[in-house]
Amino acid sequence: MGEFELIEKYFGRAARRAPLGVGDDCALLDLEPGMRLAVSTDLLVEGRHFLSTVAPERLGHKALAVNLSDLAACGAEPLAFTLALSMPRVDEVFLAGFARGLYALADRHGIELVGGDTTAGPLSICITVFGQVPPDQALLRSGARPGHDLWVSGRLGDARLALEVFRGNALLPGSAFDEVRRAMECPEPRIALGLALRGLATSAIDLSDGLAGDLGHVMRLSGVGATIEYDALPRSSVLALQSPELQRECLLAGGDDYELLFSAPRSRRDAVLAAAAEAQVAVSCIGSIDAGEALRIVDADGRPLAPAARGFDHFA
Amino acid sequence: MGEFELIEKYFGRAARRAPLGVGDDCALLDLEPGMRLAVSTDLLVEGRHFLSTVAPERLGHKALAVNLSDLAACGAEPLAFTLALSMPRVDEVFLAGFARGLYALADRHGIELVGGDTTAGPLSICITVFGQVPPDQALLRSGARPGHDLWVSGRLGDARLALEVFRGNALLPGSAFDEVRRAMECPEPRIALGLALRGLATSAIDLSDGLAGDLGHVMRLSGVGATIEYDALPRSSVLALQSPELQRECLLAGGDDYELLFSAPRSRRDAVLAAAAEAQVAVSCIGSIDAGEALRIVDADGRPLAPAARGFDHFA
Repeated sequence: MGEFELIEKYFGRAARRAPLGVGDDCALLDLEPGMRLAVSTDLLVEGRHFLSTVAPERLGHKALAVNLSDLAACGAEPLAFTLALSMPRVDEVFLAGFARGLYALADRHGIELVGGDTTAGPLSICITVFGQVPPDQALLRSGARPGHDLWVSGRLGDARLALEVFRGNALLPGSAFDEVRRAMECPEPRIALGLALRGLATSAIDLSDGLAGDLGHVMRLSGVGATIEYDALPRSSVLALQSPELQRECLLAGGDDYELLFSAPRSRRDAVLAAAAEAQVAVSCIGSIDAGEALRIVDADGRPLAPAARGFDHFA
Repeated sequence: MGEFELIEKYFGRAARRAPLGVGDDCALLDLEPGMRLAVSTDLLVEGRHFLSTVAPERLGHKALAVNLSDLAACGAEPLAFTLALSMPRVDEVFLAGFARGLYALADRHGIELVGGDTTAGPLSICITVFGQVPPDQALLRSGARPGHDLWVSGRLGDARLALEVFRGNALLPGSAFDEVRRAMECPEPRIALGLALRGLATSAIDLSDGLAGDLGHVMRLSGVGATIEYDALPRSSVLALQSPELQRECLLAGGDDYELLFSAPRSRRDAVLAAAAEAQVAVSCIGSIDAGEALRIVDADGRPLAPAARGFDHFA
């Protein structure tokens, strides 16, 4: 099977929304009048971003999910995506599963594949997503102000816990492992929450490199400090049974959470909870934005814990 | 040097045109009112799309050039691009050269890097470019009609000839090698020509996989056949000195030409030549679009030559 046959067989769906999809030099897209284009790109490399043990269907899901998560963190409505895929040889079992997982998530968000590239090479996946957002409603990393609440969606740390099991550093019973493995392999992009937070959140970021590291980006770009109430960090019952050291590592420096971390004025607590209910996602208030530039992590009595580990660095 | 420091040092230019560039979850872009977004993505893998012998500066140029070439073939005006880069380790000499070549070409076209991703992994480069085009003026592959002239810009085959020298299948004196190597490593995207052909060309494609293969895409999507006058194919004096077999392979199945192949009504010949003069690019009329679905390649007397080799396939 050659390159063009492969594209036709697995990625050859006709575009319905885009004026021009796969098959010409460029894809063509329209934005609604007055909307701004939001763009994000992520590159996933085997062994770095996913293990060779992952099911192709879950990999197809995750490759798109981590990109959609960036649109969610921007408050953008997804429109379309491109896919550049390199793999050592044409593996039809892999491709069929990958495409199935990819399109299942795409269909749930009403978006389509409009272009891409395929080539022989090491297994890697580069997806670029396109969304639209009203110019004055994009959620940025730079709008957090002292006194704002700090919120997070879903639960943290399960993906990192699964990784530690794969690394041989933790041991879980089968059903517990399935649960945290699912968190690692099938993250759910918080698109509906991002849309519901337009005009409400003052800053937002998606958690891909760990809470402490990603919060650091918000702090730097907003020129603020922050306090995290450690005991308020939402965690699964599986993670809550692990050693204090492992829990802390997973919660603060986990990576691969793909939850939204956002700030909002204290006066808007009810509105945040209503937005989360509308989006059908749990949210937890985990601390506050402070003046200064320090990150403080405190226990239930307000006593400081030791500084958190650093965020995930893909060259470390 | 970590991931974030790397991005800051080599790719940390502030956006001037885009409302939001590198550094948030998404980049934000505006189109001019009434314009359509044109998008293209290309993945370059070491050993497949470039040799390890290429100078980093030329690689930076080429990675962006092959993407801009797709915008040119669509008649789109370039706006911005994203870059996803994986490399085995942080190599500052490589990065400095790569960024220099990349930005030199970007600056010439007034476009900026708005986002991306970097990670450790095999050396590969994925660029996605964004352009804008009026909805009714995009150059597509589907508009060629019988009787139209077939045109090509620049010269064909030099890049393939250089590859054959690297492969040990051809031998050239130093200055001749430099010339064809330059064609392979520093293709010039025909943006100005693509813009000048808006409303004039009835179809267009950029030549990346070889003339015969790429013309095949136009024939299929337009539902037409075509005749190529072999002797009219523009070639360098270096290529013209090679054996007839090698010349034919390079001209018809070369790949990596990044010239524009386009059709236009016969009545618009003067307008095509004027557009090319405006864009300061040579163009050659190399044949015509026919009814039917066959590709004929004929000599100066109209006698058929043997069928051409197939286009380049990245999984063959």
